This record gives sequence, C-alpha cells and structure tokens, in this order.
Amino acid sequence: MSFNVNAEIAVCGGKLLKLSHYSDVVNNTMDVNIYLPQQYFTGSNGKPIPSIYFLSGLTCTPQNASEKAFWQLQADKYGFTMVFPDTSPRGEHIPDDPAYDFGVGAGFYLNATQEPYKKYFQMYDYVHKELPRQLNQYFNNNKNPKLDFLDNVSITGHSMGGYGALSGYLQNYHSKKYKSCSAFAPIVNPMNVPWGQKAFKNYLGNDRLTWRQYDPSELVKQVHNYGDDKILIHQGTKDPFLNENLRSNLLIEAARGTSWEDKIDLRMVDGFDHSYYFISSFVPIHAEFHAKHLGLI
Amino acid sequence: MSFNVNAEIAVCGGKLLKLSHYSDVVNNTMDVNIYLPQQYFTGSNGKPIPSIYFLSGLTCTPQNASEKAFWQLQADKYGFTMVFPDTSPRGEHIPDDPAYDFGVGAGFYLNATQEPYKKYFQMYDYVHKELPRQLNQYFNNNKNPKLDFLDNVSITGHSMGGYGALSGYLQNYHSKKYKSCSAFAPIVNPMNVPWGQKAFKNYLGNDRLTWRQYDPSELVKQVHNYGDDKILIHQGTKDPFLNENLRSNLLIEAARGTSWEDKIDLRMVDGFDHSYYFISSFVPIHAEFHAKHLGLI
Repeated sequence: MSFNVNAEIAVCGGKLLKLSHYSDVVNNTMDVNIYLPQQYFTGSNGKPIPSIYFLSGLTCTPQNASEKAFWQLQADKYGFTMVFPDTSPRGEHIPDDPAYDFGVGAGFYLNATQEPYKKYFQMYDYVHKELPRQLNQYFNNNKNPKLDFLDNVSITGHSMGGYGALSGYLQNYHSKKYKSCSAFAPIVNPMNVPWGQKAFKNYLGNDRLTWRQYDPSELVKQVHNYGDDKILIHQGTKDPFLNENLRSNLLIEAARGTSWEDKIDLRMVDGFDHSYYFISSFVPIHAEFHAKHLGLI
Repeated sequence: MSFNVNAEIAVCGGKLLKLSHYSDVVNNTMDVNIYLPQQYFTGSNGKPIPSIYFLSGLTCTPQNASEKAFWQLQADKYGFTMVFPDTSPRGEHIPDDPAYDFGVGAGFYLNATQEPYKKYFQMYDYVHKELPRQLNQYFNNNKNPKLDFLDNVSITGHSMGGYGALSGYLQNYHSKKYKSCSAFAPIVNPMNVPWGQKAFKNYLGNDRLTWRQYDPSELVKQVHNYGDDKILIHQGTKDPFLNENLRSNLLIEAARGTSWEDKIDLRMVDGFDHSYYFISSFVPIHAEFHAKHLGLI
C-alpha cells in the first residue's frame, strides 16, 4: 500500500498532495488528490482529522475540483481533510468510448460486470473500500492516527459524482459508513436518464434489476432512514443538464411516502449553471453541513 | 462604447459577466470579465461600488483568474467589483511570437513603440485609461452611478500582471488614480530579468532610458511617496521563477534610501509556488488590504 507523491503544493494553510497508487481492485494505477488542512500541521487537539470525499463529474480528473471548487479555505476553517478521487482508471489500455459520457473519465462509481469493462471499472469498490483503507494505512503508520479516512468521514460530489455520493451513501447507510452526504447537481435517477442508461447498460448489462442497487431514487425506497438524517442537494435552475439528465425532482418524488420523505433538502438556486462557479459558490454551505455531522462544530 | 455580454454566470451572491468590446487604442476586440458583487443586486447604501483591477500573468486570459483566484467570495464580503482584463489583443492578425513570454498573452501592460507591435500593443492606455472609461460609461448611463470603475479603484496582479499593477500604480501615483496597489509574485525589475528584457526590447526598442518609465524598481526612485502609502506583495519561496525573473528583493533594494523605503510590504511565504493555488491562498489578505483603502471597512 504505497503512494507516489507526484506534487506537494502549499495552499491556504495546508498542503495539496497529488498522489498516485496501484489499485488491486481496478487493476491499474489511480490518481488521487488529498488536501491536508492547516490543523494537520498545527495540531488538532489530539483527535484524528475527519475526511470529506468529493466525487467529481464526467470528464474530470482530481485536478478540476482541487483547482476550482475551493474546498481548501473551508477545510482550514473547520479542520477536515479533502479527498478528490479520479473518475475512472486511465491509460491507453483502458477500454474507452469516443463520447465523454462513458468509459475513461466516466466510471460512474459502480462495479462493472460486463466485458471488456469489468477488469478495470470497479470504481465502487475502489472509492468506498480500497482507497479509504489504503489512505488510512499510508498516512497512519502508528498507533496515534492523525488522519481519519475510514470512520469519521462524509461524502459529496458533483453531477455523476453527485450520483456517486448519493448511491454510495445510501448503499452503506446501515453500516453508517458516511456521517453525512450532500450533492451538487447530481444525477438522481440514472436508470431513467440518458447518461445513466448508457453507462448502466454497458457496465452492468441489460437487467434493470441489477441497476437498482446503484440508483439513488430506487435506494431511498429500499434503505430505511431510522433517524433524522438529511441529504443536502443544491441544483442550479440554469443548469443545461437539469431537464434531461439530472431531474432532481425525481428523487423528491421517489422519496415520497418513504422514510426519506422531507429528508432530501433540495435547494433549487436561481440562475446557477452546472460549472465549478456553481460548485464553489455553495461549497461553504456544504462544508458547514458536513462539519456539523463530523463533530467539528 | 458598447460591450457584448457573451456570458452571464451566477457565482456566489453576484454575477460574472464575460464581456467583449472594441478598443480604439489597441485597434482590436478585447475580452474582459467583470464580477458584480451581491451588493450590486441587493443595494450598496447609495454609494457607488468601487472596483479592483486584477492584471493576469503570461499566457492568461480573463478566465484563469475568474475560475481559480476566487476573488468572488471576497468581493461579496466587502462589496467591490472585480475587473479581469485580458493580457493582450488576440486574433490571427495580431503579431505574435512562438514563445509564451512575448506577443499574444504577453502584452506587458505597456504602449509599444516598435513595429509590428505598436498598432495593437497599447495595453497601458487600454488598461489604465480606455477600459475604465468604457466600463464607467457602459454600466452607468444615468446620473446615479451604481458602479465606480474610474475613481475609487485599486489595482493588483500576478507575475507579469503584478509588474503591470506596480508599474501602473506608480506611474499614476501623483494623480491618485489608484487608491492602493498589491501584487502576487510580481516581476519587480523587468529591465534586469530575461522576461522583461525580451518584452521591452521588442515592444520599446533598445533605448533603456525609455524602459525606465515602466520599471517598478526605477519608478520608486522617480515617484515620491509623500504619505504613508504601502504596497503589499506576497511571494512564494518555492516559486520556480523567483530567482531568475521575479527577484522581489531587487525592489526592496531599489526602494532603499527613497521615500518608498519600508513602504514595500514584501511577505515571503514559505513553500508556496507560482500557481493559482498560491494566488487564491492570499486573495483574502489582499482583498482586506484594498477594502480598507477603498473605504469599505
């Protein structure tokens, strides 16, 4: 479990690490960026520093959110680590598709069952299991861990990554893997929109029953919310993908009559688009939301 | 004096406008981005909203700083407009150089006197005179101006744009055109570093006497600071351009024995590089510095 540190960049009061490592589950080298907040360097009152995983959208690498979402200022404010995984394995040998919405840069955070994708596209196991374990081992090789990538963690994401965050949160809800979940302009019902249908068909085959385990609008019917957990979502009204691929209202409709009714805090924000301008505008609100659930405020 | 609004993007509490307009001084269409803070939309207590001009570095367009410097949150906090001019005229017909450090994307904020550049590379007159006048006319077509692009304004910039800010501030110091000046990793003594020498020679010719009017380390000797005005500069210690092209210590040395001695607040920041990660980390401090001089706090 070793990471290569390809760059270590001073940002705000902390450091952005551009890492790469070999993943046994995707059978490939993966890139991942980590922002260590100022508390890592100045001390965090003895408690391990919690983490927020940010899952990026179609075509993104770990660089986009690192450069443009501006989580760093918030990470320093509250004292959490940011983890920016890649959106798929990369390389000439990785099976790809000429379109931007499938293949490289479009792993959809699931475990593919179909050829030729299943060897590499095991992004669910990578993001939710292997990566957190590897990070925890790499950064905490002693008995007093300073960083927590496994237990006191939250998850968020944008677009395809918003779906990835919702899906991963709900699939792991009963084990309380994630303390909280939020999303920026997520695909909420991939089974019923073109981006999701293309990805699910090619990665998972034609059986729509197997699609359900990944679809947030199906999962809210399957996973019981025994507590008062809420999911925070921001969605711009001028998002060009809203009506065909994101359709956030479908999640609200799906939750109706379930234990998640009124627990999906969907905030439609007037005039915002799908870009990092939108994301960065609401990162402070999402940071505060997660900081509360991570016990930081 | 008309501007095309190519995009209007919701960001934080305000709007980013991607504009283009015809410049009579550079004989070409120019791009410029403007961030209008939330106070423009919610009201600013009757006072016109002041502006900060951010001059970008080599190769940049107005997009880089708009996306990565993250001024918007600060603009909303204090209530100032941000102006992001381009670094040169652009187009197939603009005389260019194959290198990144001269020609398109590298206007050096001066008025070229040499062929074939002088027709288009009049960036000093563009940035400090024509653009502010055009913006003031375009946004304030009534007797109660809401936005001030001309009078209550400050200037800052990065690298080549840091030199541009220092140079423009000092050249206009006695007319008090700018209320304050700061810079991120500026070229402080272009006459004596490779980037500056290449640009000055090609734009201004071989007479080094004419170079002096643009060189901050010469201007501090020529321009008397009668008050207590300070210039704020941040410079990263791991900046790869520090030793050959930026050499911030040369400005401190030049100011010694002049009215600017101890008025250049140069802050060497440990471990920071030349990127927008560096800029965005210190934008909050520069925003507060300018906000004080603009009467906002």
